[in-house]
Amino acid sequence: MSTIVSVDTRDIRFPTSLELDGSDAMNPDPDYSAAYVTIRTDAADGLEGHAFVFTIGRGNDVQVAAIDALRAHLVGLDVEELLADMGAASRRLTHDSQLRWLGPEKGVMHMAIGAVVDALWDLRAKRAGRPLWLHLASLDPEELVSLVDFRYLTDALTPDEALAILRDAEPGRTERTAHLIETGYPAYTTTPGWLGYSDAKLERLCREAVADGFGQIKLKVGADLDDDVRRLGIARRAVGPDFPIAIDANQRWDVADAIAWVNALAPFGPAWIEEPTSPDDVLGHAAIARGVSPVPVATGEHVANRIVFKQLLQAGAMQVMQIDATRVGGVNENIANLLLAAKFGVPVCPHAGGVGLCEAVQHLSMFDYVAVSGTMDGRMIEYVDHLHEHFVTPTEVVRGRYVTPMAAGAGTEMRPASIAAHTWAGADVEARA
Amino acid sequence: MSTIVSVDTRDIRFPTSLELDGSDAMNPDPDYSAAYVTIRTDAADGLEGHAFVFTIGRGNDVQVAAIDALRAHLVGLDVEELLADMGAASRRLTHDSQLRWLGPEKGVMHMAIGAVVDALWDLRAKRAGRPLWLHLASLDPEELVSLVDFRYLTDALTPDEALAILRDAEPGRTERTAHLIETGYPAYTTTPGWLGYSDAKLERLCREAVADGFGQIKLKVGADLDDDVRRLGIARRAVGPDFPIAIDANQRWDVADAIAWVNALAPFGPAWIEEPTSPDDVLGHAAIARGVSPVPVATGEHVANRIVFKQLLQAGAMQVMQIDATRVGGVNENIANLLLAAKFGVPVCPHAGGVGLCEAVQHLSMFDYVAVSGTMDGRMIEYVDHLHEHFVTPTEVVRGRYVTPMAAGAGTEMRPASIAAHTWAGADVEARA
Repeated sequence: MSTIVSVDTRDIRFPTSLELDGSDAMNPDPDYSAAYVTIRTDAADGLEGHAFVFTIGRGNDVQVAAIDALRAHLVGLDVEELLADMGAASRRLTHDSQLRWLGPEKGVMHMAIGAVVDALWDLRAKRAGRPLWLHLASLDPEELVSLVDFRYLTDALTPDEALAILRDAEPGRTERTAHLIETGYPAYTTTPGWLGYSDAKLERLCREAVADGFGQIKLKVGADLDDDVRRLGIARRAVGPDFPIAIDANQRWDVADAIAWVNALAPFGPAWIEEPTSPDDVLGHAAIARGVSPVPVATGEHVANRIVFKQLLQAGAMQVMQIDATRVGGVNENIANLLLAAKFGVPVCPHAGGVGLCEAVQHLSMFDYVAVSGTMDGRMIEYVDHLHEHFVTPTEVVRGRYVTPMAAGAGTEMRPASIAAHTWAGADVEARA
Repeated sequence: MSTIVSVDTRDIRFPTSLELDGSDAMNPDPDYSAAYVTIRTDAADGLEGHAFVFTIGRGNDVQVAAIDALRAHLVGLDVEELLADMGAASRRLTHDSQLRWLGPEKGVMHMAIGAVVDALWDLRAKRAGRPLWLHLASLDPEELVSLVDFRYLTDALTPDEALAILRDAEPGRTERTAHLIETGYPAYTTTPGWLGYSDAKLERLCREAVADGFGQIKLKVGADLDDDVRRLGIARRAVGPDFPIAIDANQRWDVADAIAWVNALAPFGPAWIEEPTSPDDVLGHAAIARGVSPVPVATGEHVANRIVFKQLLQAGAMQVMQIDATRVGGVNENIANLLLAAKFGVPVCPHAGGVGLCEAVQHLSMFDYVAVSGTMDGRMIEYVDHLHEHFVTPTEVVRGRYVTPMAAGAGTEMRPASIAAHTWAGADVEARA
């Protein structure tokens, strides 16, 4: 038996706003940041669980405070007992009635719970000596179902239905695991398309993306229609007539604006329109999906929980589901999201980028391929070549595909030197705000 | 000209779980708490703005940290300029792109913004020498419209439509103000119905509620159907066949459970079913509303923002809107909610209780009566006789009606002695958790 002895947090910030990397119509000057948590035990193996919530700067201290508020729920617990029933571990945090009042299941407190749950998964995968995707894909369907909190889901997905989906995917697990290790997982790149870039830089990065083997690029839109028409024209000419170009409005529009704007950009053949409006607006997304058809609507990076994802699927409001590794209540809730997507036949193309999101979310897509949807068709993971050097097991993308990670753990551990160098001192990033 | 010189916070907690006051199917042991903020200026008038976020215990420190994160946005600002355009003041906080990532517009960060906005309204009303309800009801329709953030609302409510609603209500303002001051505003009481109470206490409190002149009582349900049938029977016999009894499940159910459970309780003629399921589940509420008709569905105390309220109205999912004073982005967003309710013809019956929620939310209902909906028909404010003694201008309810407050301010200022006595020392409440 071993015991959790500490839950340590760090406020880690990178001054990315200085370069306008990551600039879009709603987020003009993000400072990519991580509210970082490390769980330590007294076990002889010396293994630690690491995870984080990604934020874009100010407020990262609030996110750290929320993780700190969970410390008392964990320190002193029996590690083996906790890790043996990760469904119970997740519910123990999510269903704390007093903390639940601060959401429920949304925003700062919910993301903090997600980070702690993910740190436990990192520890469990390290103990199993496997990358998280393979560890999850090795669990039997019954245990996977036990991880999911079906509260508020059963009108769309019951435990029995989830079990049936997982059992259907069981026969091919071995072959798909081998195929995944051999070929990796498709990626697309957002690198060319940030709003802050010049036209010349946009064109050069579009050509490089195609040359690098990516299967899709994505452009930020929504600040100015004339600019968007010009930039999409540049991109379309650079990549050729058939190469997929997704567009991303980062919640900029109301419903009528979204429909008019996307239809104005439709001649450029967008692969999808991402985040056309508020992530809370299920009915708005449904109206937009009807109004811009056949352009698919994609959303999810700001969707607060499985209950909103459920409705987006029920309403036909979302043709591409974009889970985010650190927005919801951790691996457990994202397994619920993957099962919902499988039930409704919607492809999952995760949001990534920021700091560490590629490292984290690739495990979920790869698990999905092996054990849930059983396919990579129409699926790809977002990729931004940025800040990977700060991770112990950095994401590798080769010829437009994520190289399947084989190191033990969830991929969410930062290098000690990076943690030390980027722990926030207070004024350095904030002062420029 | 004067300047904001400080934004001070306090973590205030009351050990209410010791008495099982406030116990329900989802919140078995709340410790009513306030993340409290005081805004001070260097003006000669010495007036301060006070407000808070209500929480139920653990995590109140996180809520305080979120308010602290807003300090840098306020200290040093010109007070007169800020208070003269409260729409801009609200958007300045809500649209901070880095803080927005932590929601957007939901949970801990959004509630913190609400508290700061409300503290500014408290200060502004004190400077105007009027209670907040009267101050708001004295503003011209154009200024009221300027307070509302219409982003994500225009598919349901445009600024022109809001202006028309407010102009329609303008002619009778003087008469309704006089009537309100004379008669007060209807209240209903939740005091009898907490789950933790014995049958004898339930029956006694039901009889007292009728004798005290309340127009409705409310019972918590959802933990055990047999218990609910027994308790509703006791309550119905105590109050007589025609007296309204609302029931409140505090988000306990999935959709099918809600429909079955409410239909099983339908013979007792519930006045409404409150929070049958997740506050995020618009489509679920719509399905429940269809399934339990003619029992009206009420919700709102955990609805995160105006965007979710908009959809509940669009979907016909909510027949009674229950705004909460400290759940959303403050007075400004609640004005948006009142206008949405008016547009869709749905009555607003606010959630209150906790600590200070009665004091705060009465101003919104009274403003609604004078300047928005123009009616009290089918409207009432929840009332719980609890913790009012800690406020400088405590709520008064006489013969089942809120006595219209006439003191200057928003009602949200706590007594210095109460603040001092109940500032959280760390272990006293938490240790029993």
